[in-house]
Amino acid sequence: MGLVHADLGITLDGYSAGPNQRLEQPFGDFPVEHLHSWMFEHGDENAAEVAAIVDAGAFVMGRNMFTAGRGEHDPEWKGWWGDNPPYHGPVFVVSHHARESIPMEGGSTFHFVTDGVESAMAQAKAQAGDRNVSVTGGARTVNQCLALGLIDELRLHVVPFTAGDPGDEGSRVFAGVPQISLEIASVRSTPHVNHLTYRRPGL
Amino acid sequence: MGLVHADLGITLDGYSAGPNQRLEQPFGDFPVEHLHSWMFEHGDENAAEVAAIVDAGAFVMGRNMFTAGRGEHDPEWKGWWGDNPPYHGPVFVVSHHARESIPMEGGSTFHFVTDGVESAMAQAKAQAGDRNVSVTGGARTVNQCLALGLIDELRLHVVPFTAGDPGDEGSRVFAGVPQISLEIASVRSTPHVNHLTYRRPGL
Repeated sequence: MGLVHADLGITLDGYSAGPNQRLEQPFGDFPVEHLHSWMFEHGDENAAEVAAIVDAGAFVMGRNMFTAGRGEHDPEWKGWWGDNPPYHGPVFVVSHHARESIPMEGGSTFHFVTDGVESAMAQAKAQAGDRNVSVTGGARTVNQCLALGLIDELRLHVVPFTAGDPGDEGSRVFAGVPQISLEIASVRSTPHVNHLTYRRPGL
Repeated sequence: MGLVHADLGITLDGYSAGPNQRLEQPFGDFPVEHLHSWMFEHGDENAAEVAAIVDAGAFVMGRNMFTAGRGEHDPEWKGWWGDNPPYHGPVFVVSHHARESIPMEGGSTFHFVTDGVESAMAQAKAQAGDRNVSVTGGARTVNQCLALGLIDELRLHVVPFTAGDPGDEGSRVFAGVPQISLEIASVRSTPHVNHLTYRRPGL
């Protein structure tokens, strides 16, 4: 049985996205180039952490990470990741709105789960077998999972700038999460990001 | 000329204190024993970081850190630290309310500054000479200094539990701070706390 891990790239003040998320600005009004430069511009230095994000047998994703759309799904939309997404396995997208599964190239399939994150997690675990389940985000979905005690390993990738306090309209890790205790598992620093890994106590 | 450094012990979700700060509960409704155990129960492992907090020639402190009182000062109150506070130098307490300076044993003197944090900083720098100025907290005072660009080195001591999202009534680092960029200076992990040090770019 694998672990359930969650990865979030966040600012110093804890934000993974800003307000007004939309097609042209998937992360909303937010300096997203800073948030992701460790992955895209400095991928070599951070290759282990990038690889670990998708080293899982199945995935759980929030609907707001899958699309900037809200309400009923646009049947033409197939995610941000092109024809061959980096997941290479089943991705359970938690949504209030049903949609047929979308098989993609390279083994990724997006399934839409309308009965909540716990159901999505159960389906992901059943599909993952001995491999990990990865909660890919966004922050609201990770927060829901943390509040429910569903995360074994939380990996925060903290970039050294602030989002400027967008408040409740931004997506902030731990917003709405009750008091929880974790254990410090590891820390690794590179010039562009701190990789902070926490684990559920007693794991 | 020394640096201006600021130290804050915070939860995973960024809080240094909760709501309802008062004499019996200086940190408010907050699991403060977790926040400080790295200092008081595991001081040996964290001796360098503890010593660095007070390795300064002068100090800037928010009034809410000096006392749980609000409004006019209680002339009997001399801080939380006993007769011989750990500062051993001038401490400039930013307050809306004037009070005579309070000389303490061991070289600490509390001075009350009523014309704002920039004035307190100028006075602290003048007194520190070649040594550092230390901003001791709380979060609101550190945030004010960050917003004004007064901090050269920010040291966050992050414990692995959450405060349970006390919201605006708690004291959260970076609340109200605009977008700022820092550089990652160092990271050190112990079982009870991550010590994350950031510096002003170009320092």
